[in-house]
Amino acid sequence: MRYPEYLLKLISLFRKLPGVGSKTAERFAFHIISWPQEKLEEFSYMLSEIKEKIYYCDACGALKEQDVCGLCNPSARNTEILCVVASIKDVFSIEQTKHYQGLYHVLGGVFSPLEGKFLNEERIDKLKKRVSSLNIKEIIIALDATLEGDATALFLKKELSLFSVKLSRLALGLPMGSSLDFIDEGTLARALSGRGHY
Amino acid sequence: MRYPEYLLKLISLFRKLPGVGSKTAERFAFHIISWPQEKLEEFSYMLSEIKEKIYYCDACGALKEQDVCGLCNPSARNTEILCVVASIKDVFSIEQTKHYQGLYHVLGGVFSPLEGKFLNEERIDKLKKRVSSLNIKEIIIALDATLEGDATALFLKKELSLFSVKLSRLALGLPMGSSLDFIDEGTLARALSGRGHY
Repeated sequence: MRYPEYLLKLISLFRKLPGVGSKTAERFAFHIISWPQEKLEEFSYMLSEIKEKIYYCDACGALKEQDVCGLCNPSARNTEILCVVASIKDVFSIEQTKHYQGLYHVLGGVFSPLEGKFLNEERIDKLKKRVSSLNIKEIIIALDATLEGDATALFLKKELSLFSVKLSRLALGLPMGSSLDFIDEGTLARALSGRGHY
Repeated sequence: MRYPEYLLKLISLFRKLPGVGSKTAERFAFHIISWPQEKLEEFSYMLSEIKEKIYYCDACGALKEQDVCGLCNPSARNTEILCVVASIKDVFSIEQTKHYQGLYHVLGGVFSPLEGKFLNEERIDKLKKRVSSLNIKEIIIALDATLEGDATALFLKKELSLFSVKLSRLALGLPMGSSLDFIDEGTLARALSGRGHY
């Protein structure tokens, strides 16, 4: 006995969400068909409206709520420093630390040839244009500490070498609250070489 | 910096899916806002149409595709045996084994007072009506081997004691491919007491 056609289509849509395999997608689909009609209508409406309700800043690429991007506003932010991130979500993570007041530049992804993902050239060009037109002194590369993040950082380093800006990358080391027992060698080695002096 | 209102609403909707916490819901929301418009429209349409496309059989409570429920059809199924399950998904799981040709009765949930879930009285009444009107010889209680499943099974046993039907429950024992090393005592004890003779 196969699932009804409609359910199969619903499952295939849920499978497109990140980290959702077929078992989880089935679970979601069976759950959602029991939702009351008004909740379904609400969800349906929200999805159809996304493109009209979510705006991206043309310069930094992050989400913006008003006409003017709060993150690009020179009177509110330090325009001498620019932080390059992979996704719009990373902007929120960094803002939550309350330790950064500079500008942002969202790449829209990292270089990952194995997954068929290449860098968004438009965003790279825009980055270079912004660096040359704005008076930026330092660029912080805030990418994941993964192979893909490393490759992208290396690429950016090369692309940005023409500009006389300081380039930096997020520190590697022990995550807060972690115990040496459970830390991998690579991280520990980087934490040692990057140790801070009292 | 907070997420835009629209994104927060989207996150709260995803949180309503089973097993989805706030981190996963955020991940889903940030992912879905980058979907192309046509995919969003398709998903939106699917959700709004669910109630018109998914039909439940009034008798067994399972999904049906045609006007007549294939699982209740007396010429295709063994009407002397009835399997009580918690959810419509369980019907598909049992059908997939190809080891059961009897009827089904979906309860629509188990008794779980801690989560504020009580049995659907309408479905219990319907079960009793079906048992008395159909010529059923055996009822298989196919509920989870959990505290909630046990409590529900006990309740059903009491409710169905008036009828002269054989009651049975799914066997407890080692899952296929499992190793004794990793089996909990309770399961092993039940596997021992329920051992099969060569």
